[in-house]
Amino acid sequence: MELLEKAIAEKGQVLPGGILKVGSFLNNMIDVGLLSEMGKEIYARFKDCGVNKILTVEASGIGIACVTAQFFSCPVLFAKKSKTANLSGEFITAECYSYTHKKQNTLIVPKEFLTEKDKVLIVDDFLAHGEATKACMELANKAGAQTVGIAIAIEKGFQGAGDEWRKQGINLLSLAIIDSMDENSIVFRKQ
Amino acid sequence: MELLEKAIAEKGQVLPGGILKVGSFLNNMIDVGLLSEMGKEIYARFKDCGVNKILTVEASGIGIACVTAQFFSCPVLFAKKSKTANLSGEFITAECYSYTHKKQNTLIVPKEFLTEKDKVLIVDDFLAHGEATKACMELANKAGAQTVGIAIAIEKGFQGAGDEWRKQGINLLSLAIIDSMDENSIVFRKQ
Repeated sequence: MELLEKAIAEKGQVLPGGILKVGSFLNNMIDVGLLSEMGKEIYARFKDCGVNKILTVEASGIGIACVTAQFFSCPVLFAKKSKTANLSGEFITAECYSYTHKKQNTLIVPKEFLTEKDKVLIVDDFLAHGEATKACMELANKAGAQTVGIAIAIEKGFQGAGDEWRKQGINLLSLAIIDSMDENSIVFRKQ
Repeated sequence: MELLEKAIAEKGQVLPGGILKVGSFLNNMIDVGLLSEMGKEIYARFKDCGVNKILTVEASGIGIACVTAQFFSCPVLFAKKSKTANLSGEFITAECYSYTHKKQNTLIVPKEFLTEKDKVLIVDDFLAHGEATKACMELANKAGAQTVGIAIAIEKGFQGAGDEWRKQGINLLSLAIIDSMDENSIVFRKQ
């Protein structure tokens, strides 16, 4: 997606350790006009898949998930990373390691919000090692729901998870795929 | 706001300890159609205040902040509760106690994203003791930004922070104010 690649090229910043900083428009400060264009693209790809729920992970997936859900006229469900006082009842959980936060998280969703009736589109800001997205698929699977697709803003193509899933036939859309990056340049995959 | 009060009355659940559970439509699963109606109300109240940035707190404020920001055509900035690997540079911080998570949080925003040029609307899902919202005002204040208003989905009126701020002349909109609640009934303030 040209608009997103342009934003990454102009405003993104590669930090030591393979970290791409896009906090000025995607996951700290959020350009909602850009999110809306991204939501439109995601809708174009998945509009015939019967999506009735968008699943994401707190916190940085929530913005893009909510704006995208407006196109699908469906609710967003976000997995929490810890059990809070306002959660009660039965839960589905999945383990994932966060490279950003350098810790193991247990993703948690109430059982009542994810069921075998659901056709789930997983939406997130980043796909790198694929830990969070894989945990979302596991949550859907444990609930008996069907994951009909995955929509990602930025895929770090060089970390491999996305290509592995494409080989497996998973319907994955990444709006921008970065094949390599260092402090001087960011190379996008032609799509 | 009638539509929100109706959702709270029909789908909200009062848990022991004064906790109102609205996870089925507001802060775990999210009804984006309702968010959009809420954003429209918030825009009607604050559209002439020169808002150029919406400030919220991760995670549950992000959805309503993003949908509301679409009406204002302005970016959202969300304060993080911990320093992550993709944060670098200088920061502004403010302390607040989370009654939901039962812990002290340090809210953090990069200095570059909040400046004296900003006219900030603080948006959040809940106002109870007012800790998070007060910390947002402190962040804006430390940045030299002006807080032009506060927009909240659900205010727990019986916990007092909102009325205190109204007395101080703060431009506060709460779309639903709960004056009392127990496991059998929820009483809304007439607005």
